[in-house]
Amino acid sequence: MSTHELRTVWWEDGSVCLIDQLLLPLEEVTVRCRTLPEVARAIKTMQVRGAPAIGCTAAYGVALAAQRSEATSTEALLDELWQAKRMLDDQRPTAVNLSWATSRMLQCAQAGTQEGGEMLRSRLLDEAHAILAEDLAMCKAIGEHGAPLIPERGRVLTHCNAGGLATAGYGTALAPIRTAHHQGRRLHVFVDETRPFLQGARLTAWELREAGIPQTLITDNMAGYMMRRGEIDCIIVGADRIVANGDVANKIGTYSLAVLAQTHHLPFYVAAPSSTVDLSLTHGDQIPIEERSPDEVTFIRGQQIAPAGVQAAHPAFDVTPHELITAIITEQGVWYPPFDRGLRQLCHAHFIPPVCQ
Amino acid sequence: MSTHELRTVWWEDGSVCLIDQLLLPLEEVTVRCRTLPEVARAIKTMQVRGAPAIGCTAAYGVALAAQRSEATSTEALLDELWQAKRMLDDQRPTAVNLSWATSRMLQCAQAGTQEGGEMLRSRLLDEAHAILAEDLAMCKAIGEHGAPLIPERGRVLTHCNAGGLATAGYGTALAPIRTAHHQGRRLHVFVDETRPFLQGARLTAWELREAGIPQTLITDNMAGYMMRRGEIDCIIVGADRIVANGDVANKIGTYSLAVLAQTHHLPFYVAAPSSTVDLSLTHGDQIPIEERSPDEVTFIRGQQIAPAGVQAAHPAFDVTPHELITAIITEQGVWYPPFDRGLRQLCHAHFIPPVCQ
Repeated sequence: MSTHELRTVWWEDGSVCLIDQLLLPLEEVTVRCRTLPEVARAIKTMQVRGAPAIGCTAAYGVALAAQRSEATSTEALLDELWQAKRMLDDQRPTAVNLSWATSRMLQCAQAGTQEGGEMLRSRLLDEAHAILAEDLAMCKAIGEHGAPLIPERGRVLTHCNAGGLATAGYGTALAPIRTAHHQGRRLHVFVDETRPFLQGARLTAWELREAGIPQTLITDNMAGYMMRRGEIDCIIVGADRIVANGDVANKIGTYSLAVLAQTHHLPFYVAAPSSTVDLSLTHGDQIPIEERSPDEVTFIRGQQIAPAGVQAAHPAFDVTPHELITAIITEQGVWYPPFDRGLRQLCHAHFIPPVCQ
Repeated sequence: MSTHELRTVWWEDGSVCLIDQLLLPLEEVTVRCRTLPEVARAIKTMQVRGAPAIGCTAAYGVALAAQRSEATSTEALLDELWQAKRMLDDQRPTAVNLSWATSRMLQCAQAGTQEGGEMLRSRLLDEAHAILAEDLAMCKAIGEHGAPLIPERGRVLTHCNAGGLATAGYGTALAPIRTAHHQGRRLHVFVDETRPFLQGARLTAWELREAGIPQTLITDNMAGYMMRRGEIDCIIVGADRIVANGDVANKIGTYSLAVLAQTHHLPFYVAAPSSTVDLSLTHGDQIPIEERSPDEVTFIRGQQIAPAGVQAAHPAFDVTPHELITAIITEQGVWYPPFDRGLRQLCHAHFIPPVCQ
């Protein structure tokens, strides 16, 4: 049982600090952003990835801009903060909770204009701390609700990285695993390497090792073999979007795992914050699937693995129909089918968008 | 429609020539083996792989040893050929048709001892040519039997490389695809990259490109997504061993594809020579599964992709139960369930062992 706490992003000595996720797992390097452009660059270059982790980073970015500002009036300071927000938002235009986090910081700033510059700077840093703390609390609530679903000596298969590295440090799909482990329960995690980006091999394997949680890395095509041999007890994955009927968009490969789980009569769990639920869509087929560059399939970390000129497909996500999902674990509790009514009841007060990159 | 013929191994100007499969797909280099040790080294280092291709190479190796021999008596020549056989057999002890091919060459030599050295040398080269021609004929017969199973404009998913590069040049799983293409039929192949060794990305993608057959490379975890979108019409894979009840051992990941095919009501075909059938085993669970080095999962072409010290599994094969197999395509025809009676009827005159590396 490890007490290790992973920190993906944190404030230290007036700087925004990050684990450089581009260098993991081969090097563990802390990026210290001392200026706003450095924070923007870290988001742009994906030294930090995972929507909640990006949101926390951007919030600290606004706080940093306030601290570094030499503005002598609150109006001038507010102007600078709006510019900071725009610079940060531009780095990853599709990461919705980046702009959600910077908007919240600006609301905080506007609410405190009559307090004076020093107080405002302090208030903004507190707000960034609060955003990070709320993310951690949400993930830990997912862990508390999800941990009892893992049997003693349970062998859990996971996919991609919906872990601490994608959030403030605790994760969503990895949260029930972390909580069960902290409770002293014995478990073993099978980690899908998750081609093409290898988030499993690079990030999940790294954070499980850091947390002292026993694991076995497998290639994605080994999952069925492991299930058939009786080596898996349940599957837990994250979610990028959950629509009204319970259909789930998540990293490519998730759907195949859900089919295999059903064939082998294994529970298939989705762990995600309630903010991932999108009631504006009624069916998973309505979710647009991002098609990424084929080069990400034909090259692995810069090394060419396929013949030149060969066409490759790269859908980054797939949709798992709700019929294949045993339960959805959120910070508000565990939801079982039929999902549609339960999902409508979920509180949307905290909008903290998708986790998986 | 391409008339391109792939040659994996051939005899040219007194040398055994091979495509260097270690350098594919980035470089297309011909290895010219002018001496017996050079042939042995090419087998050892896996410049040639795939059991039938290794068998053909070893047969030419014995013929080469005879050509290069300075023995003045047929007894001395026979002695040298036995030494050549032993040297070749030692390079890949588990590749059964390596020793099958060299044994056949030695039988040929012994049968021709009264003919004199020159005649014997010529006879041995003819025998090596015959082994290669028989392999090609067997693969083309698989192609003829299998091609009608592919619908017009058919989209075929394949896994690993059970292609020309694993045989004398035509392949087993790829044979129906090649034949349908040569018949002018329009088809499209989806190529699983096949982690961890990437035989699909490296070898199948290369040989389909050379043959001018349209293809799309995908990561293994995209197969289910493609099936669900209706982009696949059938699946054709090779086999390493087929046991009496029709259960099939093949490259890891094959079983998951078979489950996904069943879920999506798609035909799942296994294409393999009758020599792959092993009637000594009654059930797939009896097939030993080779567990290979975890380094082959945690490193890709020498580049580390997972954290140091992380445990990885590497079962090289899996077993697909016969219930998931629509038909088995052999050089003697197409066999449908129940497989047990049909497989017993298959002629075992030609022992040409497994194809997939």
